[in-house]
Amino acid sequence: MSQTDSEFMLRAIALAQAGVDSNAGGPFGCVIVKNGGVVGEGVNRVTSTNDPTAHAEIVAIRDACRNLDSFQLDGCVVYTSCEPCPMCLGAIYWARPDRIIIACDRNDAAKAGFDDAFIYDELCGSDLSQRKVPISTILRDEGLKVFQNWIAKPDKIEY
Amino acid sequence: MSQTDSEFMLRAIALAQAGVDSNAGGPFGCVIVKNGGVVGEGVNRVTSTNDPTAHAEIVAIRDACRNLDSFQLDGCVVYTSCEPCPMCLGAIYWARPDRIIIACDRNDAAKAGFDDAFIYDELCGSDLSQRKVPISTILRDEGLKVFQNWIAKPDKIEY
Repeated sequence: MSQTDSEFMLRAIALAQAGVDSNAGGPFGCVIVKNGGVVGEGVNRVTSTNDPTAHAEIVAIRDACRNLDSFQLDGCVVYTSCEPCPMCLGAIYWARPDRIIIACDRNDAAKAGFDDAFIYDELCGSDLSQRKVPISTILRDEGLKVFQNWIAKPDKIEY
Repeated sequence: MSQTDSEFMLRAIALAQAGVDSNAGGPFGCVIVKNGGVVGEGVNRVTSTNDPTAHAEIVAIRDACRNLDSFQLDGCVVYTSCEPCPMCLGAIYWARPDRIIIACDRNDAAKAGFDDAFIYDELCGSDLSQRKVPISTILRDEGLKVFQNWIAKPDKIEY
């Protein structure tokens, strides 16, 4: 890790502390960097905006994509004060940055009262019927028609 | 499944098709229902808004939370035209609805060109060093201080 990596991570950690101090939400901050410069930042804003998706990484990804005018973050590095939860890690995979640098991990988050490790366990369990939020299937044939129309659509924008 | 379940799912599927037709984004729609009434809706808007997090479920969760003035969706049912990707399933776990009803699944999505199954594999692999988007750790002790401050904070709002 370079001096620069430490500086960006200290910024992410400072954002996390500022979010706690201002009652924005949970103790999490994130900085996204491209070509040595910050292109997006986020703090957790779940409780202050009534948005359960407003985790620091999601806020930072949306900020960076807005600033870069792109739905992809190729060439970017995500510095986050804690290992991304499954929601945020999924978002990172869709945004496709080059790498992720974390300070704390999911077990540290669990000790501070956040369900990340539980959600990883739920998502990765092979038996969907055992999940705490059950999933049932209806109308698959009707749903598949939309996918068929998508596949056949000549002017679709893939992501 | 009830007649009502079918009606809400047909609405989610119709939203998915409308999103394809209007070039909002990928072929996905979602409806969130509480006490028999729709409280939130979403279509995928990734490419039209340059927001990689704007999947149908995330858009619908944000819409429902705005309408309900809450960051929790207790008592709600999520009807989605396709099995949620890890990002969306993570968001659902944070929002805590009662259950999820799907039409298509992750394998159907993969055949239509969407990486859901790949992302599930990446998130659930036990060896983090083998991931396509590598995760490295720095400054854990500095990060932990923010968690300690959070734990000690008397007026924190937990979620």
